[in-house]
Amino acid sequence: MSIRIGIFGYGNLGRGVEAAIRQNDDMELAAVFTRRDPATVKIATEGVKVCHTDDAKNMINDIDVMILCGGSATDLPIQTPELAKLFNVVDSFDTHARIPEHFANVDSVAKQSGRVALISVGWDPGLFSLNRLYASAILPEGNSYTFWGKGVSQGHSDAIRRVEGVLDGKQYTIPVESALDAVRSGTNPELTTRQKHIRECFVVAEEGADLARIENEIKNMPNYFADYDTTVHFITAEELKRDHSGIPHGGFVIRSGKTGLNSEHNHIIEYSLKLDSNPEFTASVIVAYARAAYRLNKEGQCGCKTVFDVPPAYLSIKSAEELRKEML
Amino acid sequence: MSIRIGIFGYGNLGRGVEAAIRQNDDMELAAVFTRRDPATVKIATEGVKVCHTDDAKNMINDIDVMILCGGSATDLPIQTPELAKLFNVVDSFDTHARIPEHFANVDSVAKQSGRVALISVGWDPGLFSLNRLYASAILPEGNSYTFWGKGVSQGHSDAIRRVEGVLDGKQYTIPVESALDAVRSGTNPELTTRQKHIRECFVVAEEGADLARIENEIKNMPNYFADYDTTVHFITAEELKRDHSGIPHGGFVIRSGKTGLNSEHNHIIEYSLKLDSNPEFTASVIVAYARAAYRLNKEGQCGCKTVFDVPPAYLSIKSAEELRKEML
Repeated sequence: MSIRIGIFGYGNLGRGVEAAIRQNDDMELAAVFTRRDPATVKIATEGVKVCHTDDAKNMINDIDVMILCGGSATDLPIQTPELAKLFNVVDSFDTHARIPEHFANVDSVAKQSGRVALISVGWDPGLFSLNRLYASAILPEGNSYTFWGKGVSQGHSDAIRRVEGVLDGKQYTIPVESALDAVRSGTNPELTTRQKHIRECFVVAEEGADLARIENEIKNMPNYFADYDTTVHFITAEELKRDHSGIPHGGFVIRSGKTGLNSEHNHIIEYSLKLDSNPEFTASVIVAYARAAYRLNKEGQCGCKTVFDVPPAYLSIKSAEELRKEML
Repeated sequence: MSIRIGIFGYGNLGRGVEAAIRQNDDMELAAVFTRRDPATVKIATEGVKVCHTDDAKNMINDIDVMILCGGSATDLPIQTPELAKLFNVVDSFDTHARIPEHFANVDSVAKQSGRVALISVGWDPGLFSLNRLYASAILPEGNSYTFWGKGVSQGHSDAIRRVEGVLDGKQYTIPVESALDAVRSGTNPELTTRQKHIRECFVVAEEGADLARIENEIKNMPNYFADYDTTVHFITAEELKRDHSGIPHGGFVIRSGKTGLNSEHNHIIEYSLKLDSNPEFTASVIVAYARAAYRLNKEGQCGCKTVFDVPPAYLSIKSAEELRKEML
């Protein structure tokens, strides 16, 4: 029998989950839940129900794992504990500083309901976190570095669009090549924010807007741009659509460490992602962890868990024997 | 209380384990076991006993995890099942084709003794296996590629030294840069053995030996060199010692996969290692997994396991709370 997946929230991430389910033969999409009028939401999978989020509570027996596709700012802090009362759930809560609080809220609920709740699943937090953990456990004497990009930052793109006179805009976070090289050389450099990433903005301005003022306002925006070397390109709406409508992302986790009685040997562990579609890749990670949530719960486990708690074998459609034979 | 580690076999790997234990504050070296006369073996750690391998059975209460540092050809198939009767054990059994058989042998013993036996721990099998599993579970529609090097292959170096007229030699396995680039481009190329790696040999010949014959014999050696583009450099014993006495290694695991309703988006997951000392790095991986073996057994688990079965959090000296706060 297939693992029956529910998608809670049908935006970019939800659509990514829908596509990812098709690549996993042991899963099926059971229903999509939306806050909008279900009649207005057209999904890509024939014959699958679109339901209102309020109706999820009536479908406990139809869904094995509910995948929460809302945002970390306001949706998930409410939705994940709420839905973990009813379902095994997976979310991609990505406000790093608030993970301990979110974990505690979800854990108490999931322990009571006997469900498994996997939080903060994706690539950062998620796969990058895993690599920080593995690499630092293996090379305790060393430094870890995380670089993001080249990719679109939704938060920074939104910030650009709030500047007066800006019609639309897109921001790319780009790791500084020389910083990457310094890290890979094993010299364990200390890097400032400015030394690690640059920010490149493509901006569509209103006709007649003061471009110098817009550029200046973006470059000096605290938190978002002031601590970085930022470049601003003014382009047309057509150019933005033609050249910048994708949502690529990626990045690097690098551990540089030493071994030996006199710390005489250097080692570099590097993990990198180059993603054409950030939401679709995130969705693919989440779907693999939905399989794990289902299996863990079948074994009688419950409570809140993260990628750190999941044995890797639980992610794969293959059996333990197949994995040992084909991948070990 | 510290986790008390025994080292079974004191060669390059055993010395690497000894050094790695010093980097882990929750561990201590309890004893080193050797097949040689213990009086002749000098270890780097003051105040720690060197014992004969035959005496291990008398030290069940002194050692929490025994790390087996013998070879995969003849040592580990015997030693791992034998010692799993008495101890939690970790080995680095790396004959990929015989892992299922080794697993079965060790599993039955460890289940009877109530111990945890972690086999095939290191970087390949080990960290590379983990990355093959994670990446293929996340991107089911795609291809995985493993490249090794640049690094010293012990087996190929041994093969060179068996050629008549050769006094000494070292072989480097080197991934072909253009093959790596093709894989990273997302074109999912099919690559032959020859297209993936080249082999570079540094050979010290006997005085007056027929160099052309030696070169020819190496290049046409079946299994080892015949399927590769191989270069042979003749150097002096002094040059070999000066320039080639290290044991570097490394490699790449790359997954190239697609997502989207029409497989329209490409993704590249790349994991790479650049290691100054193959045995010391392998030892560092093993020591982190010794911590996991200890913890799993404390929880009441037993039997044979691999890196696929171990939740990542078990590798780290940090608590689950610390990990979520600092690394997620």
